[in-house]
Amino acid sequence: MVEGTRRKRGGGGAARRAERTSGKIVTAGTITRQIPDYELLSAEALEIIERNAETVLEEVGVAFVENPAALQRWREAGADVRGEIVHIPRGLARKLCATAPANFTQIARNSERNVEIGGRNLVLAPIYGPPFVRDAGGRRYATMEDFEIFVKLGHMSPWLHHSGGTVCEPTDIPVATRHLDMLTAHMTLTDKPFMGSVTEPSRARDSVEMTDILFGGLRDRTALISLININSPLTFDSIMMGALEEYATANQACIISPFIVGGAMAPVSVTGTLTQVLAEVMAGVAYSQLVRPGAPVIFGAFVTSIDMNSGAPTFGTPEAAQITYGAGQLARRMGLPYRSGGSFCGSKLPDAQAAYETANSLNAGLLAGVNFMLHACGWLEGGLVADFEKFVMDADQLGILHKMAAGVDHGTEAQALDAIREVGPGGHYLGCEHTQAHFKAAFWRSGLFDYKPFETWLEEGARDTRALAQAKMAKMLADYEAPPLDPAIREALADYVARRKAGLDGVAA
Amino acid sequence: MVEGTRRKRGGGGAARRAERTSGKIVTAGTITRQIPDYELLSAEALEIIERNAETVLEEVGVAFVENPAALQRWREAGADVRGEIVHIPRGLARKLCATAPANFTQIARNSERNVEIGGRNLVLAPIYGPPFVRDAGGRRYATMEDFEIFVKLGHMSPWLHHSGGTVCEPTDIPVATRHLDMLTAHMTLTDKPFMGSVTEPSRARDSVEMTDILFGGLRDRTALISLININSPLTFDSIMMGALEEYATANQACIISPFIVGGAMAPVSVTGTLTQVLAEVMAGVAYSQLVRPGAPVIFGAFVTSIDMNSGAPTFGTPEAAQITYGAGQLARRMGLPYRSGGSFCGSKLPDAQAAYETANSLNAGLLAGVNFMLHACGWLEGGLVADFEKFVMDADQLGILHKMAAGVDHGTEAQALDAIREVGPGGHYLGCEHTQAHFKAAFWRSGLFDYKPFETWLEEGARDTRALAQAKMAKMLADYEAPPLDPAIREALADYVARRKAGLDGVAA
Repeated sequence: MVEGTRRKRGGGGAARRAERTSGKIVTAGTITRQIPDYELLSAEALEIIERNAETVLEEVGVAFVENPAALQRWREAGADVRGEIVHIPRGLARKLCATAPANFTQIARNSERNVEIGGRNLVLAPIYGPPFVRDAGGRRYATMEDFEIFVKLGHMSPWLHHSGGTVCEPTDIPVATRHLDMLTAHMTLTDKPFMGSVTEPSRARDSVEMTDILFGGLRDRTALISLININSPLTFDSIMMGALEEYATANQACIISPFIVGGAMAPVSVTGTLTQVLAEVMAGVAYSQLVRPGAPVIFGAFVTSIDMNSGAPTFGTPEAAQITYGAGQLARRMGLPYRSGGSFCGSKLPDAQAAYETANSLNAGLLAGVNFMLHACGWLEGGLVADFEKFVMDADQLGILHKMAAGVDHGTEAQALDAIREVGPGGHYLGCEHTQAHFKAAFWRSGLFDYKPFETWLEEGARDTRALAQAKMAKMLADYEAPPLDPAIREALADYVARRKAGLDGVAA
Repeated sequence: MVEGTRRKRGGGGAARRAERTSGKIVTAGTITRQIPDYELLSAEALEIIERNAETVLEEVGVAFVENPAALQRWREAGADVRGEIVHIPRGLARKLCATAPANFTQIARNSERNVEIGGRNLVLAPIYGPPFVRDAGGRRYATMEDFEIFVKLGHMSPWLHHSGGTVCEPTDIPVATRHLDMLTAHMTLTDKPFMGSVTEPSRARDSVEMTDILFGGLRDRTALISLININSPLTFDSIMMGALEEYATANQACIISPFIVGGAMAPVSVTGTLTQVLAEVMAGVAYSQLVRPGAPVIFGAFVTSIDMNSGAPTFGTPEAAQITYGAGQLARRMGLPYRSGGSFCGSKLPDAQAAYETANSLNAGLLAGVNFMLHACGWLEGGLVADFEKFVMDADQLGILHKMAAGVDHGTEAQALDAIREVGPGGHYLGCEHTQAHFKAAFWRSGLFDYKPFETWLEEGARDTRALAQAKMAKMLADYEAPPLDPAIREALADYVARRKAGLDGVAA
């Protein structure tokens, strides 16, 4: 077995090998679900939502702000454009969405880490976007050093398929060139796939250019997934749409994702929120197909509810789970890959609250049929904070999704009838032949949690999960080795970045 | 509205009212699922398991140890009894199980707290069995005072339907009379339903006698649910069966529950374990019906896996979830109420590990179609410890199960089409009419977690979930008031206990 290259589906073997391997990592393969999705909503409810979403698109319309080219595209496609509001006749958006692929491959520079997006697959990516980080010392503004540490931790996390994008906002470097440094980190510190910048169309272009260099020519292959948030309700701003236009033109993938705090950016009801989500995603996906038919896109849903006492967004709630399930059903009915779920929580600390809320979200994400799970580890405090300890905790829990998705084997060996015969009433299975043959792969095992006898645990300092995560993080970073990269490519990337930084010098930081 | 008596299904209203109510409690009503069950295993897999379970019953058989009367009952029913091993011909156990009711009512002394067991209902009961307790001060042996505190906390927990049984083992009072004090606590400190003693047939008899006093004559009504563990693999000991015989004869309910650490008491494979679980439950339920056809029983499955490194049982694992789902499917196919799920975890502390593991178990229990969830709050350290902080945390999380089970409303008002029209692109929903009409009941809200702004949270001491739980526990106990009880009944119970204690004086403690 060649460590660092082999892919393996599900099970605990890959992780255990990864645990033992110093300096190299093994990533468990793409998750292909062998289990059914959970269909929370009835067909009747889904049909009502679909009908109402069409009504919203036609009657209420969607705003494409400061984007005359977009309005022109819509006009040519047959929409009724009044001012900046695009009224999409019933049926048109769905028809346009039909050219979007049901699944696609995102390539990584190590082809063993390519990921399949869509169908029965689940791809896991880390937290995205927080301005703060938290570690054992407390909460502070994130730096580029923090960013690089997260990329290294992601590289060393066997259950994580993807290096993500803005794992935290490196606030110590200029805004105008930050994306160049973030991309460099993802391209050089890991060989997992990653995301592009969306904060300016020109930064999307930089993302594509640098990716083209990394891959020695993209030749229309998809190597970037980028997060295009919709300005809910029903508004598509020119920055996000500009980035989408860049990516779609280059055949790079976009997540078209409403960003909704329920009760504020969408109705307080689950059915009303799903209606708006569907209308928004349909408009966004349809627009991507106007830019380039066949461009890869993902049906996104980031939905949280609001605490009506404090106004804070809340996470891991039943309403969020209901929307996660319902949006998954709507995405499947559209034949589109689905992005939702994640390590969501509102807690200020990686404590029990954080873990309950996160586990609720991860469980719903798995059974809702999510194909791309952004924020799958490291999320804290409503997404304001990327937490080092929680990154390690969540990344460990992701192993459960791998094992659950693999389903239950009911072949002859798994039936274990001979073992039951061998052991008989009152016996025990520890020594029996079937147990000896299968125990190593039988049970998923955390690479982090405490499973020790009470007395041992006491002697070792009575550590809680945070303390265990600190120790594990230190080991992961000590064991980290950068994956090899052709020096010529590394140099070409550095040249590009230097040239762009020179050009962007003087742009507001 | 009459506080302390009103029943309300799901939603957050009941809990919020309970939060505000000093000295009285409001219990949310029985959970009746409006959502589908998650069907993890295929029909093919289930049929294989059912066929194999019959093979096990016929070929391997089950042991009824030191129980000649049981062997005689089996012989008369047509089983092939060899020594203490009962070989049950294919089809016989299932035929005998057919007289067990698909659902039944467990009455409480406050009839508003009666619970329906079976069908689409989910009833939540607290932890059962631990010799230790843990609070902010650490871990120690449990006392009767701890026991009473847990009963009071259970009474004050709005999402908890049931007072449970041995919420902890009061190790400071004699074993021989402990059950009398525990029953007294459940009967006097709360008016929620409770469980009977199973550690001796005579104690089961005491449980029935005291319950008869409490209810002024049981008259065949079911007022006790008791936990009959099977000594897996495939062994039914005379103490547990003696208790079952007492309860079944008196038409009181029993949970027939294999107690399995996978890899030790059952095969390491999920399918093999489910086969053994089904065989054991079928034998136990069939036996209950031999004692009294129509006696109420519950299909139980307590299954954990083993950590092959330390030998410790592990919780919140994917294998445990798979078995929880699979056993639920098997129970439904038998038409029996199902007991599984719970606040299971292996952690030594109520930390993130505990919460991840617990949330994994609670989520699986909800979607697996569990009807009676024992251990739904307070479980720590593999069940060795009843934890006060975690009891409060878990009991709060149970509100999520209530809300999830209520399903998604897709009526006209919930569709919120007019709200979407009213707000339009770029607006916000906070002030709109639909939001104002519905925001109070729209989102489930934790009665424990931190939802405050970061700065407020800091000023208030940067409390973690444990600290919040300590504060909440203090408030619950300060607000506690015992529900009224007829003084004559109270006296009759005390008399019974005094007489029994006198009679049991000198019995080994």
